[in-house]
Amino acid sequence: MDRLDQQLQFVAEAGRLRGVVRQTTLADPARRENSAEHSWHLTMLALALAEYAPAGTDLARVVAMLAVHDVVEVDAGDLSVYAPHADQARQSVAEHVAADRLFNLLPADQAGAMRTLWDEFEERATSEARFARALDRLQPMLENVKVGGGTWRQPGITAADVMTKVALIEDGSPELGQFARHLVEQAVRDGILAADPGTAAK
Amino acid sequence: MDRLDQQLQFVAEAGRLRGVVRQTTLADPARRENSAEHSWHLTMLALALAEYAPAGTDLARVVAMLAVHDVVEVDAGDLSVYAPHADQARQSVAEHVAADRLFNLLPADQAGAMRTLWDEFEERATSEARFARALDRLQPMLENVKVGGGTWRQPGITAADVMTKVALIEDGSPELGQFARHLVEQAVRDGILAADPGTAAK
Repeated sequence: MDRLDQQLQFVAEAGRLRGVVRQTTLADPARRENSAEHSWHLTMLALALAEYAPAGTDLARVVAMLAVHDVVEVDAGDLSVYAPHADQARQSVAEHVAADRLFNLLPADQAGAMRTLWDEFEERATSEARFARALDRLQPMLENVKVGGGTWRQPGITAADVMTKVALIEDGSPELGQFARHLVEQAVRDGILAADPGTAAK
Repeated sequence: MDRLDQQLQFVAEAGRLRGVVRQTTLADPARRENSAEHSWHLTMLALALAEYAPAGTDLARVVAMLAVHDVVEVDAGDLSVYAPHADQARQSVAEHVAADRLFNLLPADQAGAMRTLWDEFEERATSEARFARALDRLQPMLENVKVGGGTWRQPGITAADVMTKVALIEDGSPELGQFARHLVEQAVRDGILAADPGTAAK
């Protein structure tokens, strides 16, 4: 099979991400979000919010990372960030198996480069990966506010759970982290997120 | 309103692109495609097919252009590339009005940069824009083959109509243009695209 055939097979398989439905509910259109359009929306966040990345961050790499980061869900599906630890561990294994299959549809040189990009996002060791991860955590919060709670209304979810995600935003961008902290505090005041296990969201 | 508020308002308005349904029908998931996930899929094509861009093409700019190119459809909607000339002219006016509104939600410096990116795609004067436009024409052809005709089965569409789109692919990438030409010839042989007005697609 020649290079172009391999590349187009990857493009076709990756395209199935349009059928992976996420936990996030959108306000407009009023339906659950899929992982392909989520990835696109993150690239728009990256372009619009670039100035909140640490100085020297390579924005093109951030955008490429965001475009690629969820492709493994074609095989592994989407899991809630609030799922139990054991489920997260199983998901991580499934995503690594998926990465082995999907990126290797590409010619070897490209498979390596694409896998490096995905690993970098997962490992969160560079400022590019930390900023990309921050946007990936911020975007569902923005959608939750718009629908009046969304995934924050899942039974048992409290502000403390959401604040662990805010810490990850702060790590990628102190300014966006501070913004997210205020967003979560406001959500508690508005009654769309429970303050503690004893207070259910309105 | 501070910068971050303006930026987040743009991000929210742009997000409505997830609700703009295109002409293209997908095979998996089996439904019409929306413009947000289409824009994402194009960024995947750009990353996978980068080597077919003319030497010296700035891939990061291509990816940013593809992420932004359809945002105006939030206001203007999507129009078939095979629509009559008068409809295309009206659509172009509507898209320019939409660009004026949407990009100006951003702080002025960013509005200018984003508008420049969108204008560049429309004007097709740089190798980045020509390659981006080539991918935007190639992707629906790949989907049409997968669903056994798709938009090629619209009444009155013939191989000659599709070949005018192939010329645009060739202009952005001679190799992808040649590939698209063979794809269209094969579609005619397979009976999923009419050879001429007298031969309806099977």
